[in-house]
Amino acid sequence: MMDSPKRIPIFVLRLIALGAAVTAAILMFSAHDTAHVFNMTFEAKYTNSPTFKYFLIINAVASVYSLLVLCCPTNTSMARFLLVMDLIILLLLDSAISSNVAIGQVGRNGNSHAGWLPICNQVPKFCKQTTAAVIGGFVASLSYLFIVLCSFHNEVNLLPPKD
Amino acid sequence: MMDSPKRIPIFVLRLIALGAAVTAAILMFSAHDTAHVFNMTFEAKYTNSPTFKYFLIINAVASVYSLLVLCCPTNTSMARFLLVMDLIILLLLDSAISSNVAIGQVGRNGNSHAGWLPICNQVPKFCKQTTAAVIGGFVASLSYLFIVLCSFHNEVNLLPPKD
Repeated sequence: MMDSPKRIPIFVLRLIALGAAVTAAILMFSAHDTAHVFNMTFEAKYTNSPTFKYFLIINAVASVYSLLVLCCPTNTSMARFLLVMDLIILLLLDSAISSNVAIGQVGRNGNSHAGWLPICNQVPKFCKQTTAAVIGGFVASLSYLFIVLCSFHNEVNLLPPKD
Repeated sequence: MMDSPKRIPIFVLRLIALGAAVTAAILMFSAHDTAHVFNMTFEAKYTNSPTFKYFLIINAVASVYSLLVLCCPTNTSMARFLLVMDLIILLLLDSAISSNVAIGQVGRNGNSHAGWLPICNQVPKFCKQTTAAVIGGFVASLSYLFIVLCSFHNEVNLLPPKD
């Protein structure tokens, strides 16, 4: 069975990941701003883009998964399964952050070649809050990277050396 | 030392990853189309967006890395280092694909909330080629996912069982 001291860093990392993913999901869900341009009202919220929806879903999934792993008792036989699951969550978080950074970059700077104007000067509150959400997602992602590396290290180093 | 039969699937996966990443990089680099709108000429190429440039760089890095690992002799002591490097390449590819899918989705469908018009109907050749590049990147990414899983499996299962 895995030694408890070896589990402590992973437990702490899972707690950080849970906090960061929950924060990211709440920030994205509640991000909201309104702009008035030429007598028209423009409302910015997460439902405006599939990329924001994807980010919210992935962070919600990561939150539920982190909570389940923290609350449910796990044994050594599950360690390899959890490592694969952690890797999948890491990839999903990585993907959600990257797609949001790409859209956020267009929102902030626009793209003159495509004729896409920047919108962050019109809805600064929304942009700031989604940026904070992406930072939260990044912290969760980084925690999962360390969880995967720690789990791999534990899984290999708990066994007798090869030579 | 790692048994040769255990190395064959990883060798094949690295070959697939190399081919897919090189193809993706070439397709993105050579993607080009021109549209004429209101007497103005619009030229679509990878330099138009930092996301396309990022995709090209990451696939070039993945290609060089795959080539180096395939050509240079590796031993068991390097297996864990390679596993971490493979994981980093997988995360970079995942990130490059996701950001390009997000931008591609806006290019194809636009975003009425942000006032971003779709551009793929004006530069269809460019959109098709970048889509093909993203599929190439996805194949490379999938290969790296299996490389990481196989390497982890080999690394753990070559050692005596715990119980």
